[in-house]
Amino acid sequence: MHSPDIHVRSVGTALPGPAVDNAALARRFRMPSAWEQWIDAFVGTRRRHFAIDLDTGEIRHTPADLGEQAGRRALEAAGIGPGDVDLMVMGTSSPEMLMPATVNVIADRLGIDGIPAYQLQSGCTGAFQALDVAHQMLSTGRHRTALVLGTESCAKHFDVTADVAALPPAEQINGVLFGDGAGAAVLSTEPGPDPVVLRHVFCTLVGLGRPPGQIVEWFGRADRHSQRPPVVEDYKAIEESVPGLAADVLAELLDHLDWKEDEIDYLLPPQLSGVMTARITARLDVPNAHEVSCVTETGNTGNALPFFQLERALPRMIAGDRAVGISVESSKWIKAGLGLEKV
Amino acid sequence: MHSPDIHVRSVGTALPGPAVDNAALARRFRMPSAWEQWIDAFVGTRRRHFAIDLDTGEIRHTPADLGEQAGRRALEAAGIGPGDVDLMVMGTSSPEMLMPATVNVIADRLGIDGIPAYQLQSGCTGAFQALDVAHQMLSTGRHRTALVLGTESCAKHFDVTADVAALPPAEQINGVLFGDGAGAAVLSTEPGPDPVVLRHVFCTLVGLGRPPGQIVEWFGRADRHSQRPPVVEDYKAIEESVPGLAADVLAELLDHLDWKEDEIDYLLPPQLSGVMTARITARLDVPNAHEVSCVTETGNTGNALPFFQLERALPRMIAGDRAVGISVESSKWIKAGLGLEKV
Repeated sequence: MHSPDIHVRSVGTALPGPAVDNAALARRFRMPSAWEQWIDAFVGTRRRHFAIDLDTGEIRHTPADLGEQAGRRALEAAGIGPGDVDLMVMGTSSPEMLMPATVNVIADRLGIDGIPAYQLQSGCTGAFQALDVAHQMLSTGRHRTALVLGTESCAKHFDVTADVAALPPAEQINGVLFGDGAGAAVLSTEPGPDPVVLRHVFCTLVGLGRPPGQIVEWFGRADRHSQRPPVVEDYKAIEESVPGLAADVLAELLDHLDWKEDEIDYLLPPQLSGVMTARITARLDVPNAHEVSCVTETGNTGNALPFFQLERALPRMIAGDRAVGISVESSKWIKAGLGLEKV
Repeated sequence: MHSPDIHVRSVGTALPGPAVDNAALARRFRMPSAWEQWIDAFVGTRRRHFAIDLDTGEIRHTPADLGEQAGRRALEAAGIGPGDVDLMVMGTSSPEMLMPATVNVIADRLGIDGIPAYQLQSGCTGAFQALDVAHQMLSTGRHRTALVLGTESCAKHFDVTADVAALPPAEQINGVLFGDGAGAAVLSTEPGPDPVVLRHVFCTLVGLGRPPGQIVEWFGRADRHSQRPPVVEDYKAIEESVPGLAADVLAELLDHLDWKEDEIDYLLPPQLSGVMTARITARLDVPNAHEVSCVTETGNTGNALPFFQLERALPRMIAGDRAVGISVESSKWIKAGLGLEKV
């Protein structure tokens, strides 16, 4: 069965408010300057953006606001209008409401209607999941042009009144590791003026028998367990497992695409934190590849993050260039990869 | 491009705890007997099941428990093992946690691994959304056998300590309208012994410029607006819009499949409540179709509900029989349809 090539026509992103650097975080939460050095050494993330006002906790930018902005930019960059989109797929770990799904609200704001619009509940591999679903739905020939989105607004899980100094280090890390933002891409069976082909994308659950490495809770009114922390990360499991899983993804991508290590021009590695990305990339043998990372400047924006990498990589690619993207989700352990080629 | 037929190989469902009838609800919340008559006349739902213990509010069955049970039954009914499943797609409006996605937890419990597993954040059309994504991903030829799930555990939004008599009628309705449960189906490119073909499934957002008819809130710690009610329904908008949208779906299905009204043997109509289903069905001109409804016995189980209808319809279908399913989501207005044919 012959499937059409699926092209990445454009990318758009959005970040809320001004960048918050580590010094600003330390001032806000009255942490000593040693805390900044601890962040530099153990996290390596310098800046991030938050959808809330850190002083008051007020939500300044909703996930729909951010998704709308990124989506509009992607449509404009592709030179298409809302009537050209016949599929939307969005990933997020932090939905604005449970219903309606945020993707439908974003569609309304962008003037998109009369199409299927799907929202995945997903973590760090969510952008890859959304790209996979869109890629396969375009491959059937039933749809032509998809707007794929990832949004994240983790900041609402923060308690801005918390005494950060009294929190255990793992909970302190959560506040510096994550950032809010949104990204979008237009995928199409039609190449457009400057085509990059999404040759392959996959997401594979590898969670059998493994405890979750990341838990983000939902608490309803009737739940008596709401004293559990809303976000739990098993950083030790993440540090131990992610570099190896990332190497597995690279090997599987190269095998599937029949590409050699030295034929990769751009590497988009997982972006948990600056320190973790460096550790992961050291394990990946792609000698000629330029690394495309952004986590030190954006924080880990989850479902949005790969769009920030694509936004940096795509304009640099020339005909014949190949890029691979790798993502690992620690929640229940998912490994994901994608391969792009400029034609 | 020729795509393989996609077969519904089996269906499994799960309901938590004993059925709760209207008399039991009235006793529990100290409502007068006139309240039971009001439910009969205006809702028409006689029984439902809850994942919580109504007396204590304790959660007795998690969404993963229910989804695991339904999934296991579907696998057993199809006569396949976990290693035969190479795709999972689940829909829910009431995720157990935000991360990990519940579909991954269910995969682990069923012994399924090494595959893509996707969870849609969806409302009443969620089962159709999950079936559409699975159908298209099977159509590409990349996957062969999908376990499709819908789970719902709305009861956690209830406050069992509430004084129901003091609530406005719209909020009283929420407590009698919805039920908890899970459903699953095995879809496959291979027919199995008793094949029913999923000829078509679609979901179309029609929310442009329309306010949501249903809102289910998410509240993070930093959200200052958490005094809003967790569930809001615009019953007037639902009553006005759903029958017409259901008729649109039927017309679109018949047109796409080139089927005539009098060739439909089974009708699976939307299941908001017994009264609404009767009102909707009266508008649908399928003179020879047997209606397959269950809402009076299960309540509106959201993403799970179409699986209860399929479980009733499939064993009754004989070679040549055709069935149409219709669903409408009022959250941000989605219309959805499917067509089945026993070959």
